Amino acid sequence: MATQMQAARDGKITDAMKIVAEKEHQTAESIRERVARGTVAICANVNHKNLVPAGVGEGLRVKVNANIGTSSAFPDIEPELKKLDEAVRSGADAVMDLSTGDDIDESRRQIIDHSPVMIGTVPIYQATVDAIKERGAVVDMTEDDILRTIEKHAKDGSDFLTMHCGLTRAAIERLRREGRIMDVVSRGGSFITGWMLHNEKENPFFSRFDDILDICEKYDVTISLGDGLRPGCLADATDRAQITELLTLGDLTQRAWERGVQVMVEGPGHMPFDQIATNMKLEKSVCHGAPFYVLGPLVTDIAPGYDHITAAIGGTLAAVSGADFLCYVTPAEHLALPTIEDVHDGVMASRIAAHAADIVRKVPGAMEQDIAMAKARKRLDWPEQMRLAIDPELAKKKRGARNDEDAEACSMCGDYCAVKIVNKYMDEK
Amino acid sequence: MATQMQAARDGKITDAMKIVAEKEHQTAESIRERVARGTVAICANVNHKNLVPAGVGEGLRVKVNANIGTSSAFPDIEPELKKLDEAVRSGADAVMDLSTGDDIDESRRQIIDHSPVMIGTVPIYQATVDAIKERGAVVDMTEDDILRTIEKHAKDGSDFLTMHCGLTRAAIERLRREGRIMDVVSRGGSFITGWMLHNEKENPFFSRFDDILDICEKYDVTISLGDGLRPGCLADATDRAQITELLTLGDLTQRAWERGVQVMVEGPGHMPFDQIATNMKLEKSVCHGAPFYVLGPLVTDIAPGYDHITAAIGGTLAAVSGADFLCYVTPAEHLALPTIEDVHDGVMASRIAAHAADIVRKVPGAMEQDIAMAKARKRLDWPEQMRLAIDPELAKKKRGARNDEDAEACSMCGDYCAVKIVNKYMDEK
Repeated sequence: MATQMQAARDGKITDAMKIVAEKEHQTAESIRERVARGTVAICANVNHKNLVPAGVGEGLRVKVNANIGTSSAFPDIEPELKKLDEAVRSGADAVMDLSTGDDIDESRRQIIDHSPVMIGTVPIYQATVDAIKERGAVVDMTEDDILRTIEKHAKDGSDFLTMHCGLTRAAIERLRREGRIMDVVSRGGSFITGWMLHNEKENPFFSRFDDILDICEKYDVTISLGDGLRPGCLADATDRAQITELLTLGDLTQRAWERGVQVMVEGPGHMPFDQIATNMKLEKSVCHGAPFYVLGPLVTDIAPGYDHITAAIGGTLAAVSGADFLCYVTPAEHLALPTIEDVHDGVMASRIAAHAADIVRKVPGAMEQDIAMAKARKRLDWPEQMRLAIDPELAKKKRGARNDEDAEACSMCGDYCAVKIVNKYMDEK
Repeated sequence: MATQMQAARDGKITDAMKIVAEKEHQTAESIRERVARGTVAICANVNHKNLVPAGVGEGLRVKVNANIGTSSAFPDIEPELKKLDEAVRSGADAVMDLSTGDDIDESRRQIIDHSPVMIGTVPIYQATVDAIKERGAVVDMTEDDILRTIEKHAKDGSDFLTMHCGLTRAAIERLRREGRIMDVVSRGGSFITGWMLHNEKENPFFSRFDDILDICEKYDVTISLGDGLRPGCLADATDRAQITELLTLGDLTQRAWERGVQVMVEGPGHMPFDQIATNMKLEKSVCHGAPFYVLGPLVTDIAPGYDHITAAIGGTLAAVSGADFLCYVTPAEHLALPTIEDVHDGVMASRIAAHAADIVRKVPGAMEQDIAMAKARKRLDWPEQMRLAIDPELAKKKRGARNDEDAEACSMCGDYCAVKIVNKYMDEK
């Protein structure tokens, strides 16, 4: 069975392309053309049966991912399935299962089975947990352990796999010379770095990249090229280590595309606001327009408890400057595994960033939502304002708590509502 | 008694300038020089006795304002005094009393008396409420009513007064030709527009500007030139009506400076993200570097309940591009008068935006906070991370709820903490 990219290059418009075209108010042919070039990825594993396909990339609505998954401190699957439901209900376009808890196979399979949105997973997490359990230490993991885990995730229906393939010995050498404050903060990146340093070997995700492509081609898994050296604090941003890895990700993007395997590239991280646009344009240039998937960027390090906001600030500028896919950050980041409320708040903040960027990117249908809201405000049409709100439930709750149900204005201005007054006197003349 | 600006031009370094210099880690002479030019305003009414002066403008830390005040729906003063305390406790640099409730004189006086931070008020609000009570309609207000109210606010110790002096008949004519969706959403702007349309007269804040300068000079009140025609939705942004008013604000800035009266200029509003930088640079240019005080800008209209986030997104870019003073927007915006929790959340979101911009503006001491946090994270030093957090109380609460007290890592990664692993293997080699 051909991958979406292979089909596109053969001039075929797949069912997935048709669905994406309809949802994005664009022509199927224009989607096909972008999938063929690689600037749009349709992450749709042939084994993810109940998926409603979505596209990520050039000219499309900016997508939002929610990370869920068990940890050693919270190993139960049940709360994570509830988070999946909450993420989808809140409007997430994708969910990543980052489980490192008790039964990783089971949690992944249940999440994929339950999910209508694309699912991403990170095989190195499971390979590491298994290696520690079975062999005693992450550094005793074998290359074949890793490849077997990748194959298992692909076979189970993961639509995209995050793999830190560009974290080479050369990049680690640059990292050492940089003298970073935080070194490596990517979880997968830290496992691989530990393994590479201890074993004095090249990164298996890099050295065995052709074997990985075989697996991804077979199931049409999109490779999400992870940035193991993403900066973990503002002071470490845009350094030579980070850019060394990015250049390798550009090389690997090209190799994957030559095989017809779809690619996304992952990006930072923590970063001063004025470095974000440069980073986005650099990725787009050296990775030949591959869809860019960013975590944040967080524009300050000092706001734990509010990192959904620091990420929304950075994410908006990132998406305006080229990023196509925003990984949410929840208010629990840097503090704890998120609760279900954190999942909701994280998705909403990222959706706001994505939508604000969609307006600038002139995505069909985006600005129209804001115009409809403005018109409802001008008419003081409260039911319509609630309907058009990004989170109608919250808007209704906040209004209801502090207003009479039939109030014409709101309790902030009451009798002195600007809209009421201007409607009166502008009409009078 | 000389205004700060008059003293600065006479080469005098006032006590207020010394305090500002110390707080900003800069020399008093450099503060004096900027006050003399008008690019820094020290809003310090001679009658605000317990004020700790602060500066707004070029090269200084970006400041945050919190709006409080009674409304017809919530007329009591008591909750507003609690909001003042909460705003100051949360780190607001200024508070505006926007009261339109029962006893406006009393609420203003109590708020000024209680406040160590600069206080702004909007005389047209009170003049309107009084006109409706005493004369039956806003349109029956007289020019002398307005001037008397301005004098009263100045005498009571308001540090800055928002006055919509640039909302001229010419600007309203442009507004009509534009065919906006929302017309006027500024509350003060709507009162004045109604008055002007009904009475077919020029805006008294414009025609009596010299009389207003007399009052402001006497008490060293900083004029905050309000933008009555600020866009109330994305579709209305950066139109000819808005820019017509801005050009007049530039003229008036010059006239005020000629008299030694300090000025800030107020700005939008609702605005697509890609128009924000242009708006900031335009204000700085046509108002000759006057401090810029912005409300938002909100980068989408569809997120009622989350407008502290939409404002933080726009506010960061605004402050990076030249804005010096951010008026907070709370989660209650467009829905209701804020609660005390909304005040807290609004201040925090704006402080994050201001700080993210301070890093880019290279404000002394800003980046150092992020570096200290990064180093504490690298050491897994949790007490220090909590201490350095912008909201230590929230950070502790969120961490405490989902972690064992003595846990080395956090419950997101637990045993698989990237920092722990890298610290181990980077040190090993």
